[in-house]
Amino acid sequence: MNASVIAIGDELVSGHIVDTNSAWLSNALGDIGINVVGHRCVPDRVELIAEQLQQCAQVADVLVVTGGLGPTADDVTRAGLAWAMGEELMEDGAAFEEIVARYAARGIRIPDENRVQALRPASAVIIPNPDGTAPGLQAWLGAAGGAAVFVMPGVPAEMTSMWHRSVVPAIREMRQAKGGGDGDVESAEQVIVTQLVRCIGVPESRVGKLLRDLMERGANPTVGTLPQDSVVTCRVRGVGAAGVIEPQVEAVAAEIERRLGSHVLGRGMVTPAEAIVKRLTAGGLTLVTAESCTGGLVGAALTSVPGSSACYAGGWQTYSNEMKIDCLGVDVQTLREHGAVSGLVADQMVLGALEKSGADLGLAITGVAGPDGGTEHKPVGTVYIALGVVDEDGKPSTMVRRFAFPAGADPVRSRESVRQRATTAALGMCFLHLVSDVGELPGWLTWEHRPAVESG
Amino acid sequence: MNASVIAIGDELVSGHIVDTNSAWLSNALGDIGINVVGHRCVPDRVELIAEQLQQCAQVADVLVVTGGLGPTADDVTRAGLAWAMGEELMEDGAAFEEIVARYAARGIRIPDENRVQALRPASAVIIPNPDGTAPGLQAWLGAAGGAAVFVMPGVPAEMTSMWHRSVVPAIREMRQAKGGGDGDVESAEQVIVTQLVRCIGVPESRVGKLLRDLMERGANPTVGTLPQDSVVTCRVRGVGAAGVIEPQVEAVAAEIERRLGSHVLGRGMVTPAEAIVKRLTAGGLTLVTAESCTGGLVGAALTSVPGSSACYAGGWQTYSNEMKIDCLGVDVQTLREHGAVSGLVADQMVLGALEKSGADLGLAITGVAGPDGGTEHKPVGTVYIALGVVDEDGKPSTMVRRFAFPAGADPVRSRESVRQRATTAALGMCFLHLVSDVGELPGWLTWEHRPAVESG
Repeated sequence: MNASVIAIGDELVSGHIVDTNSAWLSNALGDIGINVVGHRCVPDRVELIAEQLQQCAQVADVLVVTGGLGPTADDVTRAGLAWAMGEELMEDGAAFEEIVARYAARGIRIPDENRVQALRPASAVIIPNPDGTAPGLQAWLGAAGGAAVFVMPGVPAEMTSMWHRSVVPAIREMRQAKGGGDGDVESAEQVIVTQLVRCIGVPESRVGKLLRDLMERGANPTVGTLPQDSVVTCRVRGVGAAGVIEPQVEAVAAEIERRLGSHVLGRGMVTPAEAIVKRLTAGGLTLVTAESCTGGLVGAALTSVPGSSACYAGGWQTYSNEMKIDCLGVDVQTLREHGAVSGLVADQMVLGALEKSGADLGLAITGVAGPDGGTEHKPVGTVYIALGVVDEDGKPSTMVRRFAFPAGADPVRSRESVRQRATTAALGMCFLHLVSDVGELPGWLTWEHRPAVESG
Repeated sequence: MNASVIAIGDELVSGHIVDTNSAWLSNALGDIGINVVGHRCVPDRVELIAEQLQQCAQVADVLVVTGGLGPTADDVTRAGLAWAMGEELMEDGAAFEEIVARYAARGIRIPDENRVQALRPASAVIIPNPDGTAPGLQAWLGAAGGAAVFVMPGVPAEMTSMWHRSVVPAIREMRQAKGGGDGDVESAEQVIVTQLVRCIGVPESRVGKLLRDLMERGANPTVGTLPQDSVVTCRVRGVGAAGVIEPQVEAVAAEIERRLGSHVLGRGMVTPAEAIVKRLTAGGLTLVTAESCTGGLVGAALTSVPGSSACYAGGWQTYSNEMKIDCLGVDVQTLREHGAVSGLVADQMVLGALEKSGADLGLAITGVAGPDGGTEHKPVGTVYIALGVVDEDGKPSTMVRRFAFPAGADPVRSRESVRQRATTAALGMCFLHLVSDVGELPGWLTWEHRPAVESG
């Protein structure tokens, strides 16, 4: 079966906000074996919505639509769907009672404008929304063999909840009843299975060489790669009979893991921070951070992982030289002679952080994120990252690397890009140390290993 | 003139990565007065690309396309465009020389696969790409009065650079030559003008009441609002004769600023962090942070602003109780009796941060981001934020507020939502203090003001 994903709202089409629902839904559709043929963002206009729904119904078996179900005058998805179906909108009695009850529970009468949220095209069915006032809609577009339409609210929390609770069961039922579509999957017994293997510290070109035979066009399962910063995602996708294709996809994913070795972060969209938190927690280790140019991004990434408090002690955002000196004991003379952006300062930052916190591992980052502050020898994008490790006798040793991240033309975007790459690189150094493979980092520019005693 | 924005790539359609280029381009098109009628994401398949380009050319004067210009087998945008135009692909001699020269400058011969990047449909024109190996393309689709097509690389830094350098001048020239389209703007003399006014600390419903008469449907300029966390963006959009509509849009934007008063962050997509950095720098003030549940997000937001080093000293990510005690001097007894998530601990955190740093202002955040750690009295989403201010005599005073952010059904999304809201709320408290309007924060749950001496 094929699906089209449609997001409705002037705020999306104008670029006011980025459409994240469609990417989420594509992943969710892939998880249940449905092939997505495209996304569209459509403005809040009845005739445009109707036209786009009709176009998509010609190429897809399922249309997944989000947005435009609110109570205000610019929420016209209901009307657009009715127009596309050639039906009138009518009030759904049960849906109206439900909305009245929601308001009553909060001690208020239903506002007049919210009454429109109980409208549906005559032959459509209401999808309940326990998380908000906007019910969803399920309908058919076109004659027999047409497309099933599922309309959900644009609010991500309401949408994801409705997806799991109501839309997935409905699609599963439909698929069983229908027995096949006209997309990649030829019959009801055929499924699409996807596995992701993510790795860090290996350039995409080297991943490509290592996996060349697995990546041949026309193969099934197919293997594709996608780089983001220094994380490369390998995607294994197989189409075939249920029960037969799954072990084939699994075998290819396992072979990829074998070839990429300790660079593998894990299966699925696992982040470097998640992989680190998992390994630190398993090993009973704690980590501390000392950030300058990243200003908190490394700590924010680590603490985005539920349960990170078991292994992340905390850190310092030593943005000013004073804080580097006062909080971490960085040497004034070193700052003066080498500058805040230097390997020696990164080294002292991580040693100070380890000493003050008593943590087992430390990461320190100092660099020139731009747009100003670059020099001939340290242009924008120059970042020093220090990894500090305390051995069993309590003695710290450090490894410092110099990175030269590319600086782009747009100063604000470039600044964020340098900061994000520095964050991923720092997490990558930590991860590769935890899997005992530090010596093998390709693609990064220079590195030096020195014992802590030399660093003053 | 009307524009369609088209992003090409399997990784977008599969939901592997979120399409941010299209939102960026919508904003950029709006900036030069062009109305966007929709977005599409299309897979890397020649016939689908051709079909979508032809469909869009029927409703838009300009097609802005990104992605699929790389050297590998799945980069087929060139072929899709040629198919749509009914032309053959041919090698562009100058473009080929340019690519050869780029590689020669790096001391290597052009890889065979990169030769395809010099291909173009016979009647198309190459757009140079000084930032990468993939040249862009400019072409016409359909007969006279058809659509102008601009194809740019998908890499955001290359795309934005090419947009400003080549595409904007080409569109301006085209518009002057063409003298009108068939969209909202009826003639060459008519333009679309947009102004954004962003505010913080006022719920969208109150903004709606304050601006009700300006928001009437059918008005020109029209006014719309969009809430994100506690920031509400008011969008003023006017369509009319050049030279006449601009002052009308400006007058409405100025009236909105007048009504929203000191809650206004500024014009355009200004962030709370940008507004704070601007005001701190103007006032010669410094800010320090002490973060627990946000783990660095507040510092990361502040340091995302170029020039923030002038006013942001740095901060502490005191994720563990030990770091709260050791780094900020939080009282062990208070932690034991009130818990790490409490108003008193937030208060002590900010006082410690002010004392250790010597900064003029401080922000401290401690809360339950979830998914675990919630209790009956402090459920997930409970966050305490303390704002500390040092007066002219060096004496600190603090204000602590308790927030109850909604926790959603998805544990990971909910955790990030609570952390993001806490970050915006902390920045909002700081901003509203800087504009001397602290007492007037609506929509937030409880607050208490107490002098520092009572806080132990």
